[in-house]
Amino acid sequence: MRIALGIEYDGSAFAGWQAQHDARGVQAAVEAAVAFVADHPVEVTAAGRTDAGVHAAIQVIHFDTEVTRTPRSWVLGANANLPKQVTVLWAKEVPDSFHARYGAMARSYRYFILNRAVRPALGANNITWVREPLDHERMHLAAQQLVGEHDFSSFRAAECQSRSPVRRLARISVRRRGELIAIEVTANAFLHHMVRNIAGTLIAVGCGDRPVEWVGEVLAARDRKVGGITAPPNGLYLAGIHYDPALGLPSEAGEIFGLACPVRPDQV
Amino acid sequence: MRIALGIEYDGSAFAGWQAQHDARGVQAAVEAAVAFVADHPVEVTAAGRTDAGVHAAIQVIHFDTEVTRTPRSWVLGANANLPKQVTVLWAKEVPDSFHARYGAMARSYRYFILNRAVRPALGANNITWVREPLDHERMHLAAQQLVGEHDFSSFRAAECQSRSPVRRLARISVRRRGELIAIEVTANAFLHHMVRNIAGTLIAVGCGDRPVEWVGEVLAARDRKVGGITAPPNGLYLAGIHYDPALGLPSEAGEIFGLACPVRPDQV
Repeated sequence: MRIALGIEYDGSAFAGWQAQHDARGVQAAVEAAVAFVADHPVEVTAAGRTDAGVHAAIQVIHFDTEVTRTPRSWVLGANANLPKQVTVLWAKEVPDSFHARYGAMARSYRYFILNRAVRPALGANNITWVREPLDHERMHLAAQQLVGEHDFSSFRAAECQSRSPVRRLARISVRRRGELIAIEVTANAFLHHMVRNIAGTLIAVGCGDRPVEWVGEVLAARDRKVGGITAPPNGLYLAGIHYDPALGLPSEAGEIFGLACPVRPDQV
Repeated sequence: MRIALGIEYDGSAFAGWQAQHDARGVQAAVEAAVAFVADHPVEVTAAGRTDAGVHAAIQVIHFDTEVTRTPRSWVLGANANLPKQVTVLWAKEVPDSFHARYGAMARSYRYFILNRAVRPALGANNITWVREPLDHERMHLAAQQLVGEHDFSSFRAAECQSRSPVRRLARISVRRRGELIAIEVTANAFLHHMVRNIAGTLIAVGCGDRPVEWVGEVLAARDRKVGGITAPPNGLYLAGIHYDPALGLPSEAGEIFGLACPVRPDQV
């Protein structure tokens, strides 16, 4: 049978979802913990492969097993064998046709910026610091130029292995509460570094270095060299994997740092 | 002249405000960084000495110096010489009569609880996890019995060195948003472990182990042995030091984890 797990992790302790050279990946930690409960080796498939330092408020994986365990046993057993930076949130038996990656209709990410004069001591690994005052309304306006189906080559890392640079961006918002700015973006899928490159480009607009229209020009150029910097990974969270609602998977994050995610699967 | 600094720190990396045996304290890190900017040894006095693992969204310290630096120089210079878990938020010249500890009319702490079935991976060092469902309204009601001037011996650590167990608790609230519960408490001063002992006692009421009236009985007993457990340090934040408003010190924290502090100095 096929089991799906919802997972939360703090990426600052890991080389990314996958192991890199000698540095540990989240995947290996999850596979070891699940194998301990299953009592046989387990290979897991994730909805999205996050980079080093990137967090997941919700990641979804699946694996196959012949043993019978209750959802509660998978959750408690795996958590007892995981490092404290990784938590299994839930477990659910899914149809054999379910695929954590290919079955996802859309993904949501959130990018958090602390916008103040001095660097954060609290949550230094969990938020990106921008010293220059940012105009979040300008950023929100500029971001709307990205909505729709586009060639996102200008926001794609050189090492991206995707065959096509075309993605359909369903929605993007930039909101502020106090010193905290949250960028929330939902797309059918994302290119490598796409959210961090969008964040870097929007930050250039928000601090006044670039005009609002520049984001549209960057998009049209289809050239990574014309865009903004790749924003650091520590502010980035995988925050939602949108599947067929009939599956009943609780695969969207609630609040992170008090800022709710407005994205619902029926809006995708 | 006397300089006051506002400081933020993540206590999970430290043995507490003060060094313990061989483990580093926040104080030593701050003194070294300030001494670097002042170019002479510096001794700092803090408003409150936090325990190992306890955080400060705002801590206030003062020190004396003969050198002249702009507030900006104190802030930038100190931050360049501090570990990333400590940040100087602001600097301000204060009258020689100012005392960070004795000049404080009141202090506020916040205690954050993540109330859900599985342990947190995100922010594991920065929040306390309680698995049992907590009734925050019951906790809030129970907490009101602590308001006023009382002998808080039942909430005092055995090693507390204060001469008197009497404190005046100005207000306490227990609020919830989603899975996050925040206890906010303001008093003229606090005994050692007082907030953590109050939190442990309120948790016993919130999960139904004890009736609402029990908190009043614990208080009346003046005996630490009858109270609840000492809740862990990782959910605790020093969140406000209330001075004479004429000093103009920005010594109250804003939002932490999205939950605002409702306490204003004019309400103390």
